[in-house]
Amino acid sequence: MTHPRTYVIVGGVAGGMSAATRLRRLDESARIIVLERGEHVSFANCGLPYHVGGVIEERLSLVLQTPAALGARFGLDVRVSTEAVAIDRAARTVTARSVETGTEERIPYDALILSTGASPVRIPIPGVERGLALRDLADMDAIIERARDARRVVVAGGGFIGLELAENLRHRGLEVTVVEMLPQLLRPFDVEMAHLVTERMRAHGVDVRLGTALSAIEPDHVVLDDGAATLEADLVILSVGVRPDTALAREAGLELDERGYLVVDARQRTSDPAIWAVGDAALKQRAEGGAAPVWLAGLANRHGRLAADAIAGRAHDAVPAFGTAVLGVFGLTAAVVGRTERELCEEGRRIRVIHTHPSDHAGYYPGATTLSLKLVLDADTDRILGAQVIGENGADKRIDVIATAMAGGLTGRQLADLELAYAPQFASAKDPVNMLGYVDDNLIDGEENVQWHELADRVEEGWRLIDVRTDGENAAGAIPGSELMPLDDLRDHAESLRGERVIVHCKVGQRGHTAASLLRQYGVTAANLDGGYTTWLAGTA
Amino acid sequence: MTHPRTYVIVGGVAGGMSAATRLRRLDESARIIVLERGEHVSFANCGLPYHVGGVIEERLSLVLQTPAALGARFGLDVRVSTEAVAIDRAARTVTARSVETGTEERIPYDALILSTGASPVRIPIPGVERGLALRDLADMDAIIERARDARRVVVAGGGFIGLELAENLRHRGLEVTVVEMLPQLLRPFDVEMAHLVTERMRAHGVDVRLGTALSAIEPDHVVLDDGAATLEADLVILSVGVRPDTALAREAGLELDERGYLVVDARQRTSDPAIWAVGDAALKQRAEGGAAPVWLAGLANRHGRLAADAIAGRAHDAVPAFGTAVLGVFGLTAAVVGRTERELCEEGRRIRVIHTHPSDHAGYYPGATTLSLKLVLDADTDRILGAQVIGENGADKRIDVIATAMAGGLTGRQLADLELAYAPQFASAKDPVNMLGYVDDNLIDGEENVQWHELADRVEEGWRLIDVRTDGENAAGAIPGSELMPLDDLRDHAESLRGERVIVHCKVGQRGHTAASLLRQYGVTAANLDGGYTTWLAGTA
Ligand SMILES: Cc1cc2nc3c(=O)[nH]c(=O)nc-3n(C[C@H](O)[C@H](O)[C@H](O)COP(=O)(O)OP(=O)(O)OC[C@H]3O[C@@H](n4cnc5c(N)ncnc54)[C@H](O)[C@@H]3O)c2cc1C
Ligand SMILES: Cc1cc2nc3c(=O)[nH]c(=O)nc-3n(C[C@H](O)[C@H](O)[C@H](O)COP(=O)(O)OP(=O)(O)OC[C@H]3O[C@@H](n4cnc5c(N)ncnc54)[C@H](O)[C@@H]3O)c2cc1C
Ligand SMILES: CC(C)(COP(=O)(O)OP(=O)(O)OC[C@H]1O[C@@H](n2cnc3c(N)ncnc32)[C@H](O)[C@@H]1OP(=O)(O)O)[C@@H](O)C(=O)NCCC(=O)NCCS
Ligand SMILES: CC(C)(COP(=O)(O)OP(=O)(O)OC[C@H]1O[C@@H](n2cnc3c(N)ncnc32)[C@H](O)[C@@H]1OP(=O)(O)O)[C@@H](O)C(=O)NCCC(=O)NCCS
Repeated sequence: MTHPRTYVIVGGVAGGMSAATRLRRLDESARIIVLERGEHVSFANCGLPYHVGGVIEERLSLVLQTPAALGARFGLDVRVSTEAVAIDRAARTVTARSVETGTEERIPYDALILSTGASPVRIPIPGVERGLALRDLADMDAIIERARDARRVVVAGGGFIGLELAENLRHRGLEVTVVEMLPQLLRPFDVEMAHLVTERMRAHGVDVRLGTALSAIEPDHVVLDDGAATLEADLVILSVGVRPDTALAREAGLELDERGYLVVDARQRTSDPAIWAVGDAALKQRAEGGAAPVWLAGLANRHGRLAADAIAGRAHDAVPAFGTAVLGVFGLTAAVVGRTERELCEEGRRIRVIHTHPSDHAGYYPGATTLSLKLVLDADTDRILGAQVIGENGADKRIDVIATAMAGGLTGRQLADLELAYAPQFASAKDPVNMLGYVDDNLIDGEENVQWHELADRVEEGWRLIDVRTDGENAAGAIPGSELMPLDDLRDHAESLRGERVIVHCKVGQRGHTAASLLRQYGVTAANLDGGYTTWLAGTA
Repeated sequence: MTHPRTYVIVGGVAGGMSAATRLRRLDESARIIVLERGEHVSFANCGLPYHVGGVIEERLSLVLQTPAALGARFGLDVRVSTEAVAIDRAARTVTARSVETGTEERIPYDALILSTGASPVRIPIPGVERGLALRDLADMDAIIERARDARRVVVAGGGFIGLELAENLRHRGLEVTVVEMLPQLLRPFDVEMAHLVTERMRAHGVDVRLGTALSAIEPDHVVLDDGAATLEADLVILSVGVRPDTALAREAGLELDERGYLVVDARQRTSDPAIWAVGDAALKQRAEGGAAPVWLAGLANRHGRLAADAIAGRAHDAVPAFGTAVLGVFGLTAAVVGRTERELCEEGRRIRVIHTHPSDHAGYYPGATTLSLKLVLDADTDRILGAQVIGENGADKRIDVIATAMAGGLTGRQLADLELAYAPQFASAKDPVNMLGYVDDNLIDGEENVQWHELADRVEEGWRLIDVRTDGENAAGAIPGSELMPLDDLRDHAESLRGERVIVHCKVGQRGHTAASLLRQYGVTAANLDGGYTTWLAGTA
């Protein structure tokens, strides 16, 4: 055996500790030192919002490992309250400083792993120091402390963490306003999908303000940038994004991108061959090409293990990331993988989009609820570029299936042939994911669909809009300008439509498809409103 | 337009009606006639057991479509209580006979689709006529009627339908015994996995008798074949498998396999080019090669659509079937895809097997429960051959993900890199499916695991068995012959084990992996008991 090697890991949570434990399993003889600035290692970042709301009752259940336990089991030298303040790349040492005493130690390393994560962005507005952000247990404790006497909270930022906090603060009985600069919540989703979440938040008493930002935080209120409106607030949460914790790496001269994220190769190695980087601080290769930050625990853990493997001489390449994420909020699940229609349109990509609203399981079995699915495909290759699924139950399952299909390189049409487990309490004989494949198959076969945001232009161009739902459905709410011709009577009208251009629509698109198939055979140019009235309503809300 | 074509479909449920509706969407001008022997078309076979138990309250909710509604919407000529009794292939006619009046009509066809399904097997024992089977609404009504006054029921057959019925009859307050000829319930699972279902059934008061069969049904009891034991029973359910309803096809001289299933090509065409067959009566191409029956609604629907496409000139090939299925019983979900270890061993295949028992979601978030997963891989290619997942929650999701990975041709190791949606209420940062990939990665890398059924032989050969759990866990139950060395003290013992052959085990295999990794580096030949004490216990129960 060669002389024992020393591995130093900076950051002792998701990426860092995954690397440390794996390194030990691969190399029993090495010295493995973990430096963590905070008081805790191996804590459950993702659980923090739920202790604020009391859903997770035990604070300590969020701390998954202690330095002592990691010492006993893995022989790790875990030093909390210890910050890495400098790297001497030539000498291969890292300087560790005790947060309490300030004493410093230079630790030589054979390999160094940086998993320093990302910190909440502090927006440059007056009073920003009054806002609280959530990253670790100390932050959580501070929020809980302040929430005890608070009545009104403003959450700035409608991303995943902001919404989780909004829900949990609402559980505590606070009045909650979410202020989001973009015209929608949840940037990884498209606007008509995100709207379902907005609706749900509002139904639970959360005041959601879109397209507006904080311009100042005062002791008892915030000022909004949309014409000096103010909102009373005795607690302000800032959850407007993160920036990489890479000051240490920058000082050491490691290659960063323009936003400060560490550039790594497919094996997580930085521009210094003795230094690896993983997690939120490092760029990820994206499946669609290029590199971008992706702030997800799964990837941090995975790449931590990968870096350990690379260091121990078991090199594999990281698989490019799609970015699969899920949010649970007020009983609704919103899950997403890959790219949005918005981004792809901005890039001028030729895409095909499908919306459906099936039941999560067979309608005849009790408890079925509606899912809303969106699939975004490359119009030329049928490659799956992204998907979004929102509903009470089973949204996470469908996104996982689609993410797996993407990993396997399946096309949209091939979703029709997936063999998914069916019994009536779990799915439908044609699972919602299969159904996306069928719809895609019809589009490939020449059926045309029209998106909710294209409808007005089409009507402008002279297309007739025909509602094929029932009288009752139509009476309960209809798209302005639509004519009612219920599907079961459509054959009677078909001849009269010959030669015309019509857009048919039903509630979700399914009857519309049957209607369009029928009309086309009578010489009508027929397109189907994708996702039907339901998607149109969400998009135009 | 050419002269309107006539399509006749025999069997108006899953496969048949899917073909009929699709044909209409593709061909508005055709005459489409559906012949159904029973009183109902488009009924939810899969829901029948749940109306017996009152879970599905409304009997009529099981009838998804009526002839009238299908006539109005799809212009289908749907004839219930009408049996197809003969096919004249030369003349291309089918003879339809009214079940009520016996009158016959010869209907000419351009294309004929057979989706006649499969009927419950009636075992050749005395009193078999006293047993009830479940296939359609009439059968269901009969069971409900008899269950009203019954107190003790014997269900012969521990397959999916038998167990669903057992649960639902238990819900009605009956005493239920399940009698299964095989040494386990649920043939599509391996014995140690099926045991989890047996345990759950027993915990809910169902008497499960394995390895025994009925030899006679008397008015108030049944006789078992294991030495003349009897069981009181005022209701006997026969759910011991099905045989294809292909008398019509046989008479017409279509090619059948030795068990009577219709032989079809990849586009569902039978040996007669004008006749297609789908659903339970037809063979399916299996992903692993060869053809076999697979009795699943999803495939029946899919192949119905495919046959319609082929007839309308839109030919696609059917994707070979893996057979993905799921059962919910007394709160437990048991899901499966592909082949079992048992079958593959019988075939002498070189396979690799993995068992794990992770939480369905992050342990620190309330409500986490244990899943049991099994993955079966080709030892040489790492191809995924099968998987089984059982647990309270999320089993269907994991099987769907693995089934999709199989469809995409991903290997076992590649499961580690799937990006699955993670938030603590839905999954773990390393999802159970990812974890299977990690375990596989270690096995490929040379770690050895030992299956529960191999343990005794190994110990016989002189391997030491070391329990690396805690004192408390060991005291609560241990494998005979094991020595206790808790993982956190293992380094103290490692030198003393140098040169030895040891099998380590923990509760589920995870600490065993860390122990084995450690010991190997001290010159110990170490293997890990796959799935740990938990799998061993289930297997040897
Ligand atoms: C509230 C919240 C909820 C989340 N929910 C989810 C979710 O549901 N699903 C999901 O996938 N992801 C979620 N995430 C994101 C996920 O937690 C991160 O992607 C993941 O933790 C990143 O791992 P990391 O190792 O890169 O960084 P971290 O886990 O943040 O760890 C970095 C550590 O490095 C330490 N550090 C930094 N610089 C130094 C230094 N110089 N010296 C010593 N120590 C240093 C920091 O103190 C920190 O503890 C959530 C994050 C938060 C904050
Ligand atoms: C109780 C039960 C529960 C089930 N649960 C599930 C489940 O949870 N998941 C799952 O995937 N699958 C399940 N299945 C299986 C699924 O229902 C079948 O795979 C599917 O219905 C097969 O479709 P098919 O069209 O081949 O046959 P069927 O749906 O059985 O339809 C065949 C029809 O043809 C008619 N017929 C036969 N011969 C003639 C003739 N000569 N003339 C006129 N009509 C004729 C029959 O009367 C019958 O109605 C279940 C089945 C049953 C019985
Ligand atoms: C938990 C933590 C310390 C890592 O510990 P770890 O032992 O590497 O990881 P896990 O406990 O997940 O176990 C995974 C290991 O067990 C193995 N394993 C799991 N189940 C197994 C089984 N049944 N049989 C055999 N091996 C098994 C895996 O193969 C893997 O080992 P490998 O990496 O050598 O392949 C680290 O991830 C951490 O600190 N996490 C908390 C912080 C965090 O992740 N936050 C973000 C999410 S909230
Ligand atoms: C229901 C039944 C009559 C088939 O009707 P169907 O109209 O073909 O099928 P569905 O209602 O599932 O709808 C599927 C069609 O709608 C389309 N569709 C679904 N959602 C859509 C949407 N949002 N937008 C556009 N099209 C959509 C699909 O593409 C498909 O059309 P296609 O085959 O032309 O591609 C038949 O399957 C049946 O009788 N089932 C009951 C029996 C049974 O299945 N038993 C076993 C399970 S319990």
